[in-house]
Amino acid sequence: MYQDALQEQIHKTQRKRLSDLLWIVQRQMAMEPVGGQYVVVRPLFSDDSFSGQYKKVCRQHKGLLGHIKDFLKCDAKRAKNAALSLLPIISWIKIYRIKEWLMGDIVSGISTGLVAVLQGLAFSLLASLPPGYGLYSAFFPAIIYFFLGTSRHISVGPFPVLSLMVGSVVNRLVPDGDTARNITGLEGLSIEQQKVIVASSVTFLMGVFQLALGVLRVGFIVIYLSDTLVSGFTTAAAVHILVSQLKFVLGLNTRGFSGVFNIFYSLEAVFQQIHKTNVADLVTSIVIMVAVFAVKELNDRFKSKLPVPIPIEIIMTIIACGLSYGFNFEERFNVTVIGQMVNGYEAPSAPNVEVMKEGAVDAITIAIVGFAVAFSVAKVYSVKHDYTIDGSQELIAFGASNIVGAAFKSFAASTALSRTAVQESTGGKSQIAGLISALIVLIVTVGIGFLLEPLPRSVLGALVIVNLKGMLMQFREIPYLWRKDKVDMVIWIVTCAASIVLGLDLGLAVGVGVELLTVVFRTQFPRCSVLANIVGTDLYKDQKDYLCISEPEGVKIFRIPSPIFFANIDFFRNKLVQAVGFNPLRILRKRNKALRKIRKMLKNGELQMTPAGLKSLAFTGPENWEDEENTDDLDKPVDFSDLPVQVNWKSELPANITVPPVDIHSLVLDFSAVSFIDISALNGLKTALKEFIRVEVEVYIVSCDAYVFEKLKNCMFFDDEIKTSMFFPTIHDTILHILQKHPDYIKQHEYEKEAHFKVYRGQTEGLSLRRTEKPPNTTRL
Amino acid sequence: MYQDALQEQIHKTQRKRLSDLLWIVQRQMAMEPVGGQYVVVRPLFSDDSFSGQYKKVCRQHKGLLGHIKDFLKCDAKRAKNAALSLLPIISWIKIYRIKEWLMGDIVSGISTGLVAVLQGLAFSLLASLPPGYGLYSAFFPAIIYFFLGTSRHISVGPFPVLSLMVGSVVNRLVPDGDTARNITGLEGLSIEQQKVIVASSVTFLMGVFQLALGVLRVGFIVIYLSDTLVSGFTTAAAVHILVSQLKFVLGLNTRGFSGVFNIFYSLEAVFQQIHKTNVADLVTSIVIMVAVFAVKELNDRFKSKLPVPIPIEIIMTIIACGLSYGFNFEERFNVTVIGQMVNGYEAPSAPNVEVMKEGAVDAITIAIVGFAVAFSVAKVYSVKHDYTIDGSQELIAFGASNIVGAAFKSFAASTALSRTAVQESTGGKSQIAGLISALIVLIVTVGIGFLLEPLPRSVLGALVIVNLKGMLMQFREIPYLWRKDKVDMVIWIVTCAASIVLGLDLGLAVGVGVELLTVVFRTQFPRCSVLANIVGTDLYKDQKDYLCISEPEGVKIFRIPSPIFFANIDFFRNKLVQAVGFNPLRILRKRNKALRKIRKMLKNGELQMTPAGLKSLAFTGPENWEDEENTDDLDKPVDFSDLPVQVNWKSELPANITVPPVDIHSLVLDFSAVSFIDISALNGLKTALKEFIRVEVEVYIVSCDAYVFEKLKNCMFFDDEIKTSMFFPTIHDTILHILQKHPDYIKQHEYEKEAHFKVYRGQTEGLSLRRTEKPPNTTRL
Repeated sequence: MYQDALQEQIHKTQRKRLSDLLWIVQRQMAMEPVGGQYVVVRPLFSDDSFSGQYKKVCRQHKGLLGHIKDFLKCDAKRAKNAALSLLPIISWIKIYRIKEWLMGDIVSGISTGLVAVLQGLAFSLLASLPPGYGLYSAFFPAIIYFFLGTSRHISVGPFPVLSLMVGSVVNRLVPDGDTARNITGLEGLSIEQQKVIVASSVTFLMGVFQLALGVLRVGFIVIYLSDTLVSGFTTAAAVHILVSQLKFVLGLNTRGFSGVFNIFYSLEAVFQQIHKTNVADLVTSIVIMVAVFAVKELNDRFKSKLPVPIPIEIIMTIIACGLSYGFNFEERFNVTVIGQMVNGYEAPSAPNVEVMKEGAVDAITIAIVGFAVAFSVAKVYSVKHDYTIDGSQELIAFGASNIVGAAFKSFAASTALSRTAVQESTGGKSQIAGLISALIVLIVTVGIGFLLEPLPRSVLGALVIVNLKGMLMQFREIPYLWRKDKVDMVIWIVTCAASIVLGLDLGLAVGVGVELLTVVFRTQFPRCSVLANIVGTDLYKDQKDYLCISEPEGVKIFRIPSPIFFANIDFFRNKLVQAVGFNPLRILRKRNKALRKIRKMLKNGELQMTPAGLKSLAFTGPENWEDEENTDDLDKPVDFSDLPVQVNWKSELPANITVPPVDIHSLVLDFSAVSFIDISALNGLKTALKEFIRVEVEVYIVSCDAYVFEKLKNCMFFDDEIKTSMFFPTIHDTILHILQKHPDYIKQHEYEKEAHFKVYRGQTEGLSLRRTEKPPNTTRL
Repeated sequence: MYQDALQEQIHKTQRKRLSDLLWIVQRQMAMEPVGGQYVVVRPLFSDDSFSGQYKKVCRQHKGLLGHIKDFLKCDAKRAKNAALSLLPIISWIKIYRIKEWLMGDIVSGISTGLVAVLQGLAFSLLASLPPGYGLYSAFFPAIIYFFLGTSRHISVGPFPVLSLMVGSVVNRLVPDGDTARNITGLEGLSIEQQKVIVASSVTFLMGVFQLALGVLRVGFIVIYLSDTLVSGFTTAAAVHILVSQLKFVLGLNTRGFSGVFNIFYSLEAVFQQIHKTNVADLVTSIVIMVAVFAVKELNDRFKSKLPVPIPIEIIMTIIACGLSYGFNFEERFNVTVIGQMVNGYEAPSAPNVEVMKEGAVDAITIAIVGFAVAFSVAKVYSVKHDYTIDGSQELIAFGASNIVGAAFKSFAASTALSRTAVQESTGGKSQIAGLISALIVLIVTVGIGFLLEPLPRSVLGALVIVNLKGMLMQFREIPYLWRKDKVDMVIWIVTCAASIVLGLDLGLAVGVGVELLTVVFRTQFPRCSVLANIVGTDLYKDQKDYLCISEPEGVKIFRIPSPIFFANIDFFRNKLVQAVGFNPLRILRKRNKALRKIRKMLKNGELQMTPAGLKSLAFTGPENWEDEENTDDLDKPVDFSDLPVQVNWKSELPANITVPPVDIHSLVLDFSAVSFIDISALNGLKTALKEFIRVEVEVYIVSCDAYVFEKLKNCMFFDDEIKTSMFFPTIHDTILHILQKHPDYIKQHEYEKEAHFKVYRGQTEGLSLRRTEKPPNTTRL
């Protein structure tokens, strides 16, 4: 007895000394690091006690209404800013440095203009239109963009992928051959005229969509077109372009196809006629492709030494044009030439309503792709030259450009990467360069266009093909992504394959769908882990990852590594049941059934109260004690109120009643990665937690985000069983709290087992019910 | 001098004593809580030093190939299990307790059978089929499910929503009236026969889809049908059912509609004929609806007192049947009766290929909805009665049921919640009850079916409508969700509205799309926050939330509260720039420009080395020093190698060169909620971090998930500039490390400013370049 008292005394002194020490440490330390040590001495916090000690600032969150009000607020300054942002030219023309920039803009404008003429001609073949209309597309949109655009460097005009997409609509609505559809308003026009009107009507609608997106300021939707997706998509587009140009290179006359599987139909058509190949066209094409390819390689290699890159495409075009005229290719070799060029401009015309109805879905796709490409190119140069571009204003600019362009029969404009590169690298400083390039196009259109009439179409096809190199090289992304991120590789391949096989519009939709699904998937099947304490620290890591790690007795620390929502709440519940090793609902039911049995036996006098607990008097068969007709109320909390004793579920029960053991007393859920929770998940979580609480497992939630906590409160997550006192700021706080609450868990546990074993060893039924008077927390053991 | 030494001595002693104290504390404490204190003393860790001290277990992660191998592994045990799981009846029939369960099953089977007959007749009207075919749907699938199903309680047979969806296909492919389509294989058949074949063909295809999903074990896709979505969808279905039954209740004869806006067309057709309302039908319907509604309320209220609920529907049907027969409703009041019933069963027939082609999309939707409903109902009862059901096996069971059923001209079967409730509540214990209910249906079909022939169709319509109460009551979810979760409310409303307006199949697709988008949205626009230290603790919270909070001088702690992926990486970069208050790229460029200028000035002798730094000799104009033609290399790290001194960017620079100040020296990114990162995000993050590192801001990443870290390593995230030493386990570790590295940041900073001010006060240019010989870490100040 005396020894015990002495021991106690020593212990007390040690404690006293320790807390003195702690006080000193705490005073001295504050936030200073001490010799590479991590020292923290502070009160133990739960979230409740923390918010008791540290007052929270009451922050007014602006509601939806407030945001709308803010958005609609109007004053002089806002009005002026809005006006200025609608006409960006006002801002930049004021700071235009004529002396330093004009020369560069002029040089750049002329080079870009020449390229634009050539590309305009070539890309109108992609759009299944007569070559001259590409010149319109390189003119009108560029003029409008000059006033409305915020990018200083992009060259606005036709873009091969868009041209091909327009061509797909044109081929569908005005097929070559005799399968023509009757479109109201196009009766009596020639096939070519019909094609032009279809293209411009779709372009008009595309412009309207872009304008609408810009006015509604929802240009952010293009972020769903991730780099990977765009890469896969443009690669597929390159394949389509390649196939569509084969007929020009071979000098064949096949019809255009559109819709699902059109690439296979196109290939089939080409190969069926391959014996009709025009050798003159083929030879011209090969010569041009080889020459252009070779000189471009040289340009690349001697980039630093050449003052300007050799304009090989323009040179080859002029040569081809001259040769074709000189040797009369058209008649001698039966080569298809550009022929009658547009001469000047046509009067504006209204778009066709029926075409717009039929092509609405295509127009949406074209609008989004066109803007996405232009915006990403513009962003590259805005970052390089350190100015800001405005997504919504860009949408408005492109929308207006395309609407005006469509009125003058041009087709969908965006920007071509290659042309923009020319404009920037030859010294373009502002859209003045774009304006000058438009003037060059104008001059060709109204003045010297006829000089291009003898140019063979195969030359244009060859130029398009040789420029696909960069886009096709993107196939190299596959092995790169395979090594880095398999999911991204799947997105790339699916987008590319779907775009090739199903056509560009459907393929893009499939790609976006798959891409969004991957986000859901990654959030949905995360890797859960059971954490444990790194011995001697306050750190908790995955217990499977470290050797020197120990799990506190009777405690499970379960980390939820992602947001919880409808699609993964069941997944988490299963993982949690796996981690703790028992199903709390099943145990609760077994306990309630056992309790009913005990009640019945007490009533029938088959069980007797003894000071040590309950004792079974009559032997009842062990089998089927669980058979109950009435399964109601089994999921309710265990209710001892009408019993004279409480049942200790850990020890053996009378009358061969067995209930599976629960070997943990506390469950800690690490919520640090739970960034949101939806209503299904919240209900599921609540149910799961209640099941644990009802089998006397204390549940703690750690590092819960302030907003998630707010949400739980608003959604009536808390009640008699689930309380805010279960929230703690860190895992270590929780574990210390648990240890404080169950100071001798292990010893007592062992001791009790032992005791019961001794007392009831001789009997068939091990009775182990303890008196209700005991302090409540011991009943949890 | 002596005093300083003394001070130093005292300081040293204190330090010594302190570390002694710490040693004692550390020894004594381990993991014991000390009087409600949180005490931690451990070495300061970075992730590198941590993994140096604590060895990681090398875990072999099974690759994709390993999983596939595991999946395909075959041995005797697996084969036996597979066989058993394919025929669940073998498992449960063995443990069937005839004595205790059989009676319940028989009673339940008979009650359910009667309900099934009635529902079969009623639901075939929804499917636009002659009433008798509903009896087939209540027979064949139930028989097959008896052998293959894993749920013991659901009653397999027609389900109103599915019946309506089948009816929609039937109406589309075999419209009433003279607009009939020519379907190969159906020539020469009556309209009714055609309808039956269309329904059974779609059901066949639906069965094939379900079977395929089951065999591929992809039944988990139904988790995308969240509770909210299903609630909105079924409410819309109830509205459709209501509208479709109006014509029976009013005794009208309108044609069925299908496709987008069909509900409006149906309503229009009903109201156009409303003057033709058959009063006898209307009165019968109203009487039946009122009676059934009232008695059901009573059943509900006196649930506990009634032994079985009053089978009011069966009673009313029998009365209506008798009255109709007795008073010859058909001829006297021109009431449409059921008429010629099916008599026995028809020989099996093959499905029609063209119908399957036309109805493929519908079949997919029907298959998914049918399974989703059945599975969710089965899950409720399996949880209640504590047994497991197997999703894939359920899919196989329903697939087989529908395939076999379709062969015998039944239509899509799933389960009806009301019928299953009857089966379970009247004491059904196993699928024996289902078998018996099928036998009842069989007896009616082959034996006493003719007795039902005088039953008016309006009675069936009235019974269907009165049973919609529960589904229509789901409209009450809207205010509930408005209070709890606005996003879920949007999902509910969009799904419901789209399903009503666009039809059930398209509506469901729209709902799922919106639901998945919300997951992306919630992950995409999270709330970022800047953290700060709660004074006196190791806790870091949102600095706007607390009063007693302090941000360490020169440090920004930025919390990223969600996964990072392609759609939000730019968002985070913008938020980060906002949080630190400067754009690192812009500052880097300005610094590099300034350096070029200084180099040029040194070369031209306009700057002179002085022992204190550089001194400007000639006055150069302040304007346009940033004008540079060459913008290359501006994004490279600042390179001092060819300069005799290093530039201190904090102080004034010579020759009026100004560079915006950077007022932080360390940036801490809290990654604890970053559960995954994709390749676009990884590249974006790398760029962002490099920009900060190049303007001499140290970047630290805290609490990075082990798998995310692994991924960063695999994707070559680390190089000369971005090193693994930037990773730390906790924010507090990082801050202590930073304080150690910059012990007198504030003082030195102040001091330097002061010094420069003194020396160069009189000159126009404040020179502030320090010698390169200084230790490297001071250059970062």
